[in-house]
Amino acid sequence: MDSNRQGDFTLPGEAGYEQLTLSLAKTWGADVIRDSDGTKLSDEIVKAGYGIYSTICIIRQHNAFAQAHPESQQQVFLCSDPVVAAGETTVISPLDGYFTEQFEINASAEAMAYWQVYDRTVNQEVPRNKWKYQNGQVTVTDCVPWHEYTVSFLCWRIWEEINMYNHTTNHWTSEHLRQLDPRHPGAWAYMCGWLEDWCRQNPDTTVVRFTSLFYNFVWIFGDDMRCRSRFTDWASYDFTVSPAALKAFEAEYGYALTAEDFINRRNLQATHMPPTPAKRDYMAFIQKFVAEKARELVDIVHRYGKKAYVFYDDSWVGMEPYGPYFSSIGFDGLIKCIFSGFECRLCAGVPIETHEIRLHPYLFPVGLGGLPTFSEGGAPEKDALQYWRNARRALLRAKIDRIGLGGYLHLTEGFPAFVDTITRIAGEFRRIKALHEAGGPSVLPCRVAVLHTWGSLRSWTLSGHFHETYMHPLIHINEALSGLPVEVKFISFADAENGALKDVDVVINAGRAGDAWSGGEAWRSEKLIEALTEFVYRGGAFIGVNEPSALPGYHTCFRMAHMLGIDLDTGVRVCHGKWQYDVETLPGVFLCHEALGRKDRLFLTDGKAKVLSDANGVPQMTVNQFGKGLGIYMSDFAFSPESARMLLDLLVLAAKIQNAPYLSGDPRVEAAYYPRSQTLLVINNADEAVSTSVQLKGRRLDVSLQPMETKEFSILEGE
Amino acid sequence: MDSNRQGDFTLPGEAGYEQLTLSLAKTWGADVIRDSDGTKLSDEIVKAGYGIYSTICIIRQHNAFAQAHPESQQQVFLCSDPVVAAGETTVISPLDGYFTEQFEINASAEAMAYWQVYDRTVNQEVPRNKWKYQNGQVTVTDCVPWHEYTVSFLCWRIWEEINMYNHTTNHWTSEHLRQLDPRHPGAWAYMCGWLEDWCRQNPDTTVVRFTSLFYNFVWIFGDDMRCRSRFTDWASYDFTVSPAALKAFEAEYGYALTAEDFINRRNLQATHMPPTPAKRDYMAFIQKFVAEKARELVDIVHRYGKKAYVFYDDSWVGMEPYGPYFSSIGFDGLIKCIFSGFECRLCAGVPIETHEIRLHPYLFPVGLGGLPTFSEGGAPEKDALQYWRNARRALLRAKIDRIGLGGYLHLTEGFPAFVDTITRIAGEFRRIKALHEAGGPSVLPCRVAVLHTWGSLRSWTLSGHFHETYMHPLIHINEALSGLPVEVKFISFADAENGALKDVDVVINAGRAGDAWSGGEAWRSEKLIEALTEFVYRGGAFIGVNEPSALPGYHTCFRMAHMLGIDLDTGVRVCHGKWQYDVETLPGVFLCHEALGRKDRLFLTDGKAKVLSDANGVPQMTVNQFGKGLGIYMSDFAFSPESARMLLDLLVLAAKIQNAPYLSGDPRVEAAYYPRSQTLLVINNADEAVSTSVQLKGRRLDVSLQPMETKEFSILEGE
Repeated sequence: MDSNRQGDFTLPGEAGYEQLTLSLAKTWGADVIRDSDGTKLSDEIVKAGYGIYSTICIIRQHNAFAQAHPESQQQVFLCSDPVVAAGETTVISPLDGYFTEQFEINASAEAMAYWQVYDRTVNQEVPRNKWKYQNGQVTVTDCVPWHEYTVSFLCWRIWEEINMYNHTTNHWTSEHLRQLDPRHPGAWAYMCGWLEDWCRQNPDTTVVRFTSLFYNFVWIFGDDMRCRSRFTDWASYDFTVSPAALKAFEAEYGYALTAEDFINRRNLQATHMPPTPAKRDYMAFIQKFVAEKARELVDIVHRYGKKAYVFYDDSWVGMEPYGPYFSSIGFDGLIKCIFSGFECRLCAGVPIETHEIRLHPYLFPVGLGGLPTFSEGGAPEKDALQYWRNARRALLRAKIDRIGLGGYLHLTEGFPAFVDTITRIAGEFRRIKALHEAGGPSVLPCRVAVLHTWGSLRSWTLSGHFHETYMHPLIHINEALSGLPVEVKFISFADAENGALKDVDVVINAGRAGDAWSGGEAWRSEKLIEALTEFVYRGGAFIGVNEPSALPGYHTCFRMAHMLGIDLDTGVRVCHGKWQYDVETLPGVFLCHEALGRKDRLFLTDGKAKVLSDANGVPQMTVNQFGKGLGIYMSDFAFSPESARMLLDLLVLAAKIQNAPYLSGDPRVEAAYYPRSQTLLVINNADEAVSTSVQLKGRRLDVSLQPMETKEFSILEGE
Repeated sequence: MDSNRQGDFTLPGEAGYEQLTLSLAKTWGADVIRDSDGTKLSDEIVKAGYGIYSTICIIRQHNAFAQAHPESQQQVFLCSDPVVAAGETTVISPLDGYFTEQFEINASAEAMAYWQVYDRTVNQEVPRNKWKYQNGQVTVTDCVPWHEYTVSFLCWRIWEEINMYNHTTNHWTSEHLRQLDPRHPGAWAYMCGWLEDWCRQNPDTTVVRFTSLFYNFVWIFGDDMRCRSRFTDWASYDFTVSPAALKAFEAEYGYALTAEDFINRRNLQATHMPPTPAKRDYMAFIQKFVAEKARELVDIVHRYGKKAYVFYDDSWVGMEPYGPYFSSIGFDGLIKCIFSGFECRLCAGVPIETHEIRLHPYLFPVGLGGLPTFSEGGAPEKDALQYWRNARRALLRAKIDRIGLGGYLHLTEGFPAFVDTITRIAGEFRRIKALHEAGGPSVLPCRVAVLHTWGSLRSWTLSGHFHETYMHPLIHINEALSGLPVEVKFISFADAENGALKDVDVVINAGRAGDAWSGGEAWRSEKLIEALTEFVYRGGAFIGVNEPSALPGYHTCFRMAHMLGIDLDTGVRVCHGKWQYDVETLPGVFLCHEALGRKDRLFLTDGKAKVLSDANGVPQMTVNQFGKGLGIYMSDFAFSPESARMLLDLLVLAAKIQNAPYLSGDPRVEAAYYPRSQTLLVINNADEAVSTSVQLKGRRLDVSLQPMETKEFSILEGE
């Protein structure tokens, strides 16, 4: 087998297109054929000698059971829109504005016990004897006129959300699929039995690909097309709730959760915000439950001699691969659909046997954003190459075992450029993987810790894909880091307080005031301040982006202002004079001004920080000496090949690395050296040809690359 | 006397330039001649038959006394720069970084009792037995390593700040003037005696012009020219402090203030931020003291048959003309130096006999911003016309009694265009005043209340001139309002809670989250929310600008979001879907998109508000029906003739006025109708000729105006 031409590739097959399936399997060098949501494999495909992945969504394929046992369906807390009391009685229709094909009020006695009416003007619950529910309406009495009232209530979720999305996006007309809650004993027994039967009936399947487990990420639809998606969070736990779960939680944790623990002043609890202590407990509770149940399913699959892979998207909630229970489930492989480099690193870093990435575009007529891909006006080969540009940088740094595609294979007909592009990508992937297998790439002596609320639990990711989280500077930082030759780990504030900084050269904190990535209340800890201050004073570096370490109530807005030399005026310093400065450069640091923000209200604290970039007379990037270390500030960070290089240069500066090897002369070109293979891999991230040179140990290597080219050089490096 | 050619004009005379003085007095129609800081009047001028203003700065002209009695000088609390403890002992030089020609440490036992050392990392005072002061340094022991420490300390102020400013700006070399604290009994007796002598020795003086009273606005200089002005606030009380004042306060209020009440986490307490309750008490305490002492001075002046005018700038602190004690002082006139329309209204609204504005530019070689005026490269006639453009709109609406100039008259030689411009301005001023004297202008039935922390105390002004406060949207709103034909008052949150809304049609709240203009903590009051909600529900209007009614801790960021239909995401709603919208227009509302901001994170709450302007896909201006009233939002507001017209149109909309008269077809042209005189005054704010029409009752009047022209029309309007 020519390892550059064959293997490690999962092809979506399609019954009715047997010839196309087997032909593309050969072209792309597939060793595995899979089905997809909406496609089936025929006997001709299944018996062709390939490994077979079969996708299973364990909670979704059982409408008959769900209809017979509606109490086994999944639920959610919702909050009504607020209503202003114009008098002493206020009538609220809780479900108004929500998509009634997704939600159905649960007014059972068991559920009603969890309903709450709130006076939102004063943030207080209204006593139960002041309101009653009847015929879809809550009537609140003894209102304070002109206050706002809401109803928090439990709903059944009567349409599985991925099915709902595909229906509403692709105009499907098939039956709405419902979803079962594994916490319901009858439903659970049913699902386990169903899986046993399925395994028995599908002897050719080599891998059961769970898509995914039980609880979908949160996706709350509204009834108005002008605001169809009322709330979407890839990592929130709202869809795991039920009276049964709440009772089990109370029994285990000794205290009860209320609707308000979920509704949180109508905001819900987004992953991007620091969790309440109760949310942390609840997450741990759900994670343990999900792992226990998943282990039972995996055991069934293993009993039938099949492998169990899990697709890390869709109904994945509670299954965090960097969480404490993931390994206990016993999955054999993790499949991550990726658009970006950080997602490759996310997948590569999970302790599991097989790491597979599913490339984009998905073989669908339109993409996630609604633009054409495999339809008139689409250019799927360009999409594929763009995502490959993002992924390739990351794949240079960490090994991925397999790649694959998903969707309707027949849609590739008429897109031969796409077929060629995938052929090329598959070849490059195999070349990179082979280098990793011989021995990993050279890494600079720079250990980076990304510091935020979630720590390692949310390694690399924030909550969802890049295009869903682009407004958070940290995803841009993570994306840049995913392709840099440095060690990266993700630590929580508790980790930083408890010794994690001793193995670290540079700490990065990137977020907006009060969010989970900046940290909010975590910065009240004096232990944290002390640990980081000593860390930098003794020679470490702290890189702050946007509103790092911001917390109200102290003499600075940024709690790290003393090391950054720059701070943000929340208004209290509007009468304070601003330091004049010159904009400087630093030798060896490439400046990508476009990556920075245009924040006003930033000011130098003592005029000592060097200003490397500014906008409208306000410093946007500074470097400040603090003790033996550095405080580095960027007002924002937008990922690009150029800004990634700026970040790398800052890391090299921060870690005090002299003559860092394998950096190229052009920020758009990156290089990785694999010492065991004596191979230098150079990639061009630009859409144009680039000629530059790469620093080796003691000499420079001139390189010329075609647009997007990946080039290999045999290089024997001395010590 | 031709009232358009003569009178109501104060000319700065200058000894040595007698002919120029008397000639310009005739040209400009002066009836009064004054001296200025740095100029004297000669006998020839004083005896020429004009009224004579003599400027007196009562606290500043007594260096011999100050040197003999250094304990009678004024003081201030300062806070050292923070020092990070790298070990258990930390040494801090408190005065480091401050301008030592302005400050001298007060280490007397009486003063030391007020010093404080703070651990700023945890916001706690360090016990006194852990630190000591010696030879300009404080040594703190038992520090927590890596915490930040500061010293708050008392200083003597050894250079009167206006004199310091003139010295450092204009390179004066004369002796530094010191300033006395009227709270010091010996100093006070001395100042009163001195004033008696002065009055006796200056029989020709008809008006003693106090410049101003005792305590200068806060102006703290640093020793580094890169940040010369460490803090400037035109309305802060820091310069009123002394151990004597603190003891008197404690005796009167029953509780003691500490250094931290002033230092406030190193931020001091800017007027732009809501005051602490202690600051409110302290301000009242100082205001009463200042009024009592000022009354004594005015009595002396009156005893000598002279009038007492006060210049409302410089050492004016505690003398708020809209405060409770101002009338008790007994001043006969108030002189306000003005750049803007709001300053004219500020002056015009004070209950006092004579309202005088001092026009700009000041007859100095350079202006406040350091650019040339009466020197090479200057064009003082352009400056004068620009300030007149601002003032004229306001003068149409409210009567000012006198205008004047200040500075070195001889500098006008060589600037004949300036002389002509002032002649023209004086003529226009007299024309407008004459109309007011016959009877005020027509006003639309729209009563506007500007709602903020300070209420009427800070009517029209924020804290200082426009160019010092331009970053606050409210000053732009006030400037726009100053020339609009509506009733305007300034109310506090307490006023709004206690019935002030019953005489109001439109409430405006304009500020940034947490500042004094938005209101911060005031918005916790449910009484306030109820009053405003009912007000709008019943037909009123609420105009919110930038971050109106913002307060953390509730289900919305803007506490008025329910009536505005728009809110600001502080991060908690990043996963919530955003309403799609169309950008609409409203009949009769001129849209000045340039005046608005480019705020991100704004979102429609329920999709019902009309979006009138947006930027980057984010609504920037909305109008929302709430009950019978309107909630109107603008993300920012930058003053221009055009934006003033937008505001007027919004007020007309909000007050439900049909066919509002005297509005012009061009936003740059404004009109005022004086029914008693049957005169329509039309002004062109543009630098180009404009032809347009003005709506009268039942017909339109075509008008053509030259650049900046003021034009009068005789118009008889029926009912």
